[in-house]
Amino acid sequence: MDVIELRAEFPVLRKLAYLNAGTDGPLPARAVGAAVEELRREAEEGRTQAHAERCTELEGALRATYATALGCDTADLALTTSTSEGIAQVLGGLELGSGDEIVTSDEEHPGLLGALVAARELKGVSIRPVALAEVAEAVGPNTRLIACSHVGWMSGSLAPKELAEVDVPVLLDGAQGVGAIEVDVGALGCDAYAGAGQKWLCGPDGSGMLYVTPGLREQVKVLRRGYHNLANPTDGLEARLHEDARRFDSLSLSAEAIACALAATRLLESAGWSTVHERARRLAARLAELLSERGIGVAPRGESTLVSFESADPEAERARFADGGVVLRDIPERPWLRASVGAWNDEDDLERLLGLLSR
Amino acid sequence: MDVIELRAEFPVLRKLAYLNAGTDGPLPARAVGAAVEELRREAEEGRTQAHAERCTELEGALRATYATALGCDTADLALTTSTSEGIAQVLGGLELGSGDEIVTSDEEHPGLLGALVAARELKGVSIRPVALAEVAEAVGPNTRLIACSHVGWMSGSLAPKELAEVDVPVLLDGAQGVGAIEVDVGALGCDAYAGAGQKWLCGPDGSGMLYVTPGLREQVKVLRRGYHNLANPTDGLEARLHEDARRFDSLSLSAEAIACALAATRLLESAGWSTVHERARRLAARLAELLSERGIGVAPRGESTLVSFESADPEAERARFADGGVVLRDIPERPWLRASVGAWNDEDDLERLLGLLSR
Repeated sequence: MDVIELRAEFPVLRKLAYLNAGTDGPLPARAVGAAVEELRREAEEGRTQAHAERCTELEGALRATYATALGCDTADLALTTSTSEGIAQVLGGLELGSGDEIVTSDEEHPGLLGALVAARELKGVSIRPVALAEVAEAVGPNTRLIACSHVGWMSGSLAPKELAEVDVPVLLDGAQGVGAIEVDVGALGCDAYAGAGQKWLCGPDGSGMLYVTPGLREQVKVLRRGYHNLANPTDGLEARLHEDARRFDSLSLSAEAIACALAATRLLESAGWSTVHERARRLAARLAELLSERGIGVAPRGESTLVSFESADPEAERARFADGGVVLRDIPERPWLRASVGAWNDEDDLERLLGLLSR
Repeated sequence: MDVIELRAEFPVLRKLAYLNAGTDGPLPARAVGAAVEELRREAEEGRTQAHAERCTELEGALRATYATALGCDTADLALTTSTSEGIAQVLGGLELGSGDEIVTSDEEHPGLLGALVAARELKGVSIRPVALAEVAEAVGPNTRLIACSHVGWMSGSLAPKELAEVDVPVLLDGAQGVGAIEVDVGALGCDAYAGAGQKWLCGPDGSGMLYVTPGLREQVKVLRRGYHNLANPTDGLEARLHEDARRFDSLSLSAEAIACALAATRLLESAGWSTVHERARRLAARLAELLSERGIGVAPRGESTLVSFESADPEAERARFADGGVVLRDIPERPWLRASVGAWNDEDDLERLLGLLSR
């Protein structure tokens, strides 16, 4: 599948320079088609026993597809509705208390920060934010967990490779990781990785995944237990959790959402993960270079798919770019606009952005 | 809207005697249409700032519509993905410990039981199951909560009216309540009510709501905090929760799921809640009567929309009914088949069921 074929899968690219996958990816026509097919089937055939079996089948297929994208076993992967939900499952379930410390970075997303605040307020844990590059060396005698981004959402910086060597559990917020850059949870050496389905995997809002190693799984209490998390739900008050990561699954994922996420992820998989990652990496680096050549300050970044650049008035500028057909986002509390560059973008999209720069 | 017009909204009723809303309601064509419209818009226009604003608008409309169905203020109503999720939010967030007791019934669903088991295992709470009719009088000196069904999912029995008078908090599992029978949370005297969007409100899988009184809200810790739960997400580690029930909202509801749930609920609302409830109540009572006249034992029930009846081999019988175009469910660990009778059903649906009885 070449880039022209890939671009043709995304209706939004016909009119917009869509550079917003860090919020929500472009939605492929075939993913919409897959959701519509499920909805029509449900309305016409009813949500019967066959529907329940269809849901189970779709869940298995999505779990396997996500596991491939993360380089993990399907048994270690839970289906969630968002990155934040996966993070909350892990942080909420770990037995931590007063005197314990969590190391994080100073450029985290509210999805992780919310869970950290809950740990501080409800468990008395202390939170230690440092620069993302320094999280590994910040581990001290009371550190019980490192919880930080795989790829920082504000600037596209990367978590340090030294995280693979630390001897405390590591939870990565992979919202800007999976689908955007290569993810190999084994090589990253993380104990948990929470990712999004609707961003770089181009699925529907309300999709995501959580990887947890078997070792960490034993330490995370499951606070929320619905039908899908139980090995044998009919055991009543004696019902036990699934042994594998299904204990962390979201309680109610619809067939239409799963089918949509599956079709989108498989589209990218069929283009080849290494092709997708390499193309996005090169194009993002090219944008950073072109901006620098024009004297626009680019925020310090790693080899990611995010390019944040200086703006005197990011919120107004975002709206001005949108009016010109270029979809970006502004970063709160930072003087930056952020472009999310995917394998589905091309040089023309970058040119449209550059053409709208105010200087 | 008369019954013929109402029935015409549900494609599945053209061929099946669909009596399974206790699992999943029939999905109206207009609800599918609403979801498809959102999906197409997202694919073609992109998920931009306008999309985010659209989501907020849809959430507000669904919250208001659900609040009307429950007879509560919108400020006291959270949007969830399922009944179980709402239950888990309340049970997980209450500060309970060893020596504390929760009274429940002996006919609860795994969605509530899972949360009770978690409270027992993780907090040392003791669980006391009694007959549903007796939950109010079972309150003892150590009882900190009553958590039980509004309408029992196995037989359609009703929680006792005396619950309105007890002086401990009451959490009702309303999965078989809201949409099926009248719900007035004030008259019920409950402190929390968790309901489903996909059952008697005919919405998509992955929809639901949680009502919590302002008084109980203060006692329930919010363990899971995402972007949507925070009053000002950009406040980082100082971010505070919404004062109102939005603090309990699910982290990521899609525009398509919300629009689908909204269209389905508004359809029933436009038919008139009292008309919907009265019609279903009468039809369900009629089915129970017809079964009894034929010598089929009907499980003890209240004035609900569920009719469970004896079957020598429920699982095999369920399949046999399905082959005959009648959709029921079997109840695990009980010798019963369950018919869910909604305002969209008619006498012909009942006749088709009766025609397939083995005696």
